[in-house]
Amino acid sequence: MTDRDTRHKKAMQKRKEIVDAKVAKATEERGIVIVITGNGKGKTTSAWGTVARSLGYGYKVAVTQFIKGTWDCGERDIFEGNPNLSVHVMGTGFTWETQDRELDKKACRAAWEQTLPHLQDDAVHLVVLDEITYMLKYGYLEIEEVLEALKNRPEQQSVILTGRAAHRDLIEYADTVSEVRDEKHAFNAGIKAQKGIDW
Amino acid sequence: MTDRDTRHKKAMQKRKEIVDAKVAKATEERGIVIVITGNGKGKTTSAWGTVARSLGYGYKVAVTQFIKGTWDCGERDIFEGNPNLSVHVMGTGFTWETQDRELDKKACRAAWEQTLPHLQDDAVHLVVLDEITYMLKYGYLEIEEVLEALKNRPEQQSVILTGRAAHRDLIEYADTVSEVRDEKHAFNAGIKAQKGIDW
Repeated sequence: MTDRDTRHKKAMQKRKEIVDAKVAKATEERGIVIVITGNGKGKTTSAWGTVARSLGYGYKVAVTQFIKGTWDCGERDIFEGNPNLSVHVMGTGFTWETQDRELDKKACRAAWEQTLPHLQDDAVHLVVLDEITYMLKYGYLEIEEVLEALKNRPEQQSVILTGRAAHRDLIEYADTVSEVRDEKHAFNAGIKAQKGIDW
Repeated sequence: MTDRDTRHKKAMQKRKEIVDAKVAKATEERGIVIVITGNGKGKTTSAWGTVARSLGYGYKVAVTQFIKGTWDCGERDIFEGNPNLSVHVMGTGFTWETQDRELDKKACRAAWEQTLPHLQDDAVHLVVLDEITYMLKYGYLEIEEVLEALKNRPEQQSVILTGRAAHRDLIEYADTVSEVRDEKHAFNAGIKAQKGIDW
């Protein structure tokens, strides 16, 4: 064994001890609230990755896409028709396309009303509230009603909320918060958004 | 219209102009290199979300999972059998489980040899090199050979590389870099990792 091999073995033994100790301490079994925020690429994509994971085990999943006008086609083609997946799309398109606050607000309320039953249904393993942070930011939804729905959800249900600039009360309530930071973005360097990658 | 509605309309008009101008400027059409790094949750999940998107359009996708011993079961159940998806798993398990640098290195080289043909195949739309950053960190792969493979890949092919502590030369070469930061993690609060969410 070389010196590097020996050092590696020692470092990995230590790492294993740390990981094992953490695993042993994590004993609480319940659904969690995950917030994926920040200005970087991959928040919605990450949520869909978890949707795939849950559907793979045969769990029921409900997704509500706030803001987006149509269901992203790549994901749609692969997941549509899965009997365990329910998708609701707000349907007005980007709010900077409509430029109409009253119209957006009504569409948002309708999407929220459609979502609430899933947040009360213990057969639903995962609920995704995609880009909901903007609804809070624009005042279409109140933080209190969103937190209340999260607090009253079934114990084993997990919820993923995505979008930039998440409300601080949401971050405080969440079990897991990931911030995706845009260190560099191809789009800003003049590269066109691409089918199968960006949508 | 209330004052807030009017202000919203103006702000959204401005936003639309900015977005439209950016879209108009982004004219280069080619595959991109995406690095998803940082210590936060959701890097691999995000990559799988993009895999779903590409498969949804009928594109060919090749995934190599470095480090992980077995293919994560949730994703496996939903994607396995898709004729457009090729998955290679390094197969030695976490390096802190094996604690054997020589064994890891051999497994890594074998995984890399399996991956290279995909990086040269213009029928492959997306290649995912999951957790490859650790292979560079541990010296199982050299940054030069990885960069060379990326530079010589087909023009329309995109590649996603994930893992903590990405090599600075990789970050410099990439078109898009997202850093996922762990602001808070349920696991650290004693909540057990969960089927359908964490794996």
